Amino acid sequence: MDNIVVVRGTASNGIAEEISAILNVPMIGAEYHILADGESYVRIPEKVSGKIVILVQSTYPPQDKHLIELFLLMDAIKSYNPKKIILIVPYLAYLRQNKRFKEGEPISADIMLKMIKNAGADALVTIEPHRPESLVVFGGKSMIADPLPAYVAAVPKGLKKAVVLSPDNGGLQRAERFAKLLGTPFTSIDKERDKTTGKIYIKSESTFDFKNRDVIIIDDVISTGGTVAQAAKFVKSEGANKVLVIAAHLIMVGNCGKKIKNAGVSSITGLNTVPSKGTRVVDASRILTESIEGILRLNEY
Amino acid sequence: MDNIVVVRGTASNGIAEEISAILNVPMIGAEYHILADGESYVRIPEKVSGKIVILVQSTYPPQDKHLIELFLLMDAIKSYNPKKIILIVPYLAYLRQNKRFKEGEPISADIMLKMIKNAGADALVTIEPHRPESLVVFGGKSMIADPLPAYVAAVPKGLKKAVVLSPDNGGLQRAERFAKLLGTPFTSIDKERDKTTGKIYIKSESTFDFKNRDVIIIDDVISTGGTVAQAAKFVKSEGANKVLVIAAHLIMVGNCGKKIKNAGVSSITGLNTVPSKGTRVVDASRILTESIEGILRLNEY
Repeated sequence: MDNIVVVRGTASNGIAEEISAILNVPMIGAEYHILADGESYVRIPEKVSGKIVILVQSTYPPQDKHLIELFLLMDAIKSYNPKKIILIVPYLAYLRQNKRFKEGEPISADIMLKMIKNAGADALVTIEPHRPESLVVFGGKSMIADPLPAYVAAVPKGLKKAVVLSPDNGGLQRAERFAKLLGTPFTSIDKERDKTTGKIYIKSESTFDFKNRDVIIIDDVISTGGTVAQAAKFVKSEGANKVLVIAAHLIMVGNCGKKIKNAGVSSITGLNTVPSKGTRVVDASRILTESIEGILRLNEY
Repeated sequence: MDNIVVVRGTASNGIAEEISAILNVPMIGAEYHILADGESYVRIPEKVSGKIVILVQSTYPPQDKHLIELFLLMDAIKSYNPKKIILIVPYLAYLRQNKRFKEGEPISADIMLKMIKNAGADALVTIEPHRPESLVVFGGKSMIADPLPAYVAAVPKGLKKAVVLSPDNGGLQRAERFAKLLGTPFTSIDKERDKTTGKIYIKSESTFDFKNRDVIIIDDVISTGGTVAQAAKFVKSEGANKVLVIAAHLIMVGNCGKKIKNAGVSSITGLNTVPSKGTRVVDASRILTESIEGILRLNEY
């Protein structure tokens, strides 16, 4: 471990410090300011030559700025000729556009991962990248840190007949895995998003009986809160008792928090991959560090 | 020309329309909106398969957003399998950081040009890229459109004993070339920028006699206006008559315009590579089109 150094990028939200503490290795904070014309300036103020560099750079809003800064940081680190660069992107933006829904669209997820690869990252660690298969494009060593075990301690004790709910069929596996950790049943409701308007509606009624049950809604990202609010309203209308929400990345734009609360949700739990607007924050540093340790072990760096 | 199509990106400022009109080829406007979470969505709504695509995308502020959109647009165009992509970036951001002024800095100019190359542009056209030699990194065919002849018509008639002034020694060649077009003398003043504070000061007095002369200050980019304002104040204090400013890219952040006017400048002329805050706007479309025609001719596309 004496050859490892953590570099805190411009969007780490405290995670770089924690990883440095858990691994017991030094941390270098990137120098950072916005130039008068709006361009970002970064600098790595200490030599990292010959070292294994763990760069922590999330890409929460403003996503484009944090992405460009990621590329600047990679170049600055490479100027020292490090041994390897392990790039930690706790929240990776643009992953939802992972196919051409309509002709003439970009596959944004592939572009971002190719650009990260071209920037010279030897390994990549992220959390809940919408579709894990997107990471194949990265090509290098990539690891997806699993947040589900970390959520368990954040679930309040004494829930009544708890059930884990995915607000769409795409997340059913996530709900199943989390339900197994909690020892509860799980289900999903079927949602559709209109490709043009973006409007979400519940396609068919669930056959699960939510009456008098506490419901834990689990998802990957909460942006506008539309999906989660609609699911909460639905289970409330079906007689559910308490409704809790857990999601990895709480982007939560505009009146998202209010929308979710108004739908009858009592608490929103998320990771610190994004500066949190949730009720409870679960630190992602430990699960990210486990992935880093996996990479170090596998590659014998 | 029947195999050529212009695509208007998300930051064209009218240039795509003009190039399409001059070349007499069709133009497709990219679909564009900002998603609820702040990510950019683009789409090319018409097939460009087998065509020579001229993509117009400037990267004026917000630079990072326009850069990421450039990469999204490139991927969307490539999805149709066009014959070639000629990328027109009237203003290319991040080019001023073209070397490591301090250890541990990125070379931002190289990163941007490499990313544009990796995005699949076959040719690149830009204007006043700070240091022309930066474009070597692009690798593919690149052309720098020269704005100096286009400025001539924007210089008012009847100037008194006009002299062209570069506000720093680095721009002396530009001043010399422009002075030749106008048939006037030229000179520069020696400026230094403190690498840490960014403060600009005039290092040594010019030996040129500005008394009762009209002075045309010429530069590549005006961002804060500090350089130009200082030069204007200096020549005014030396007895200059009228002071005019011409620069390609008028980024002009904050109180830049006021700062320049207060320094005694009577007009600011610039290109439409950036949504203009100047007094006079010179259309860059014709010089860009000349470069495009050069590329088409040279490559026999």
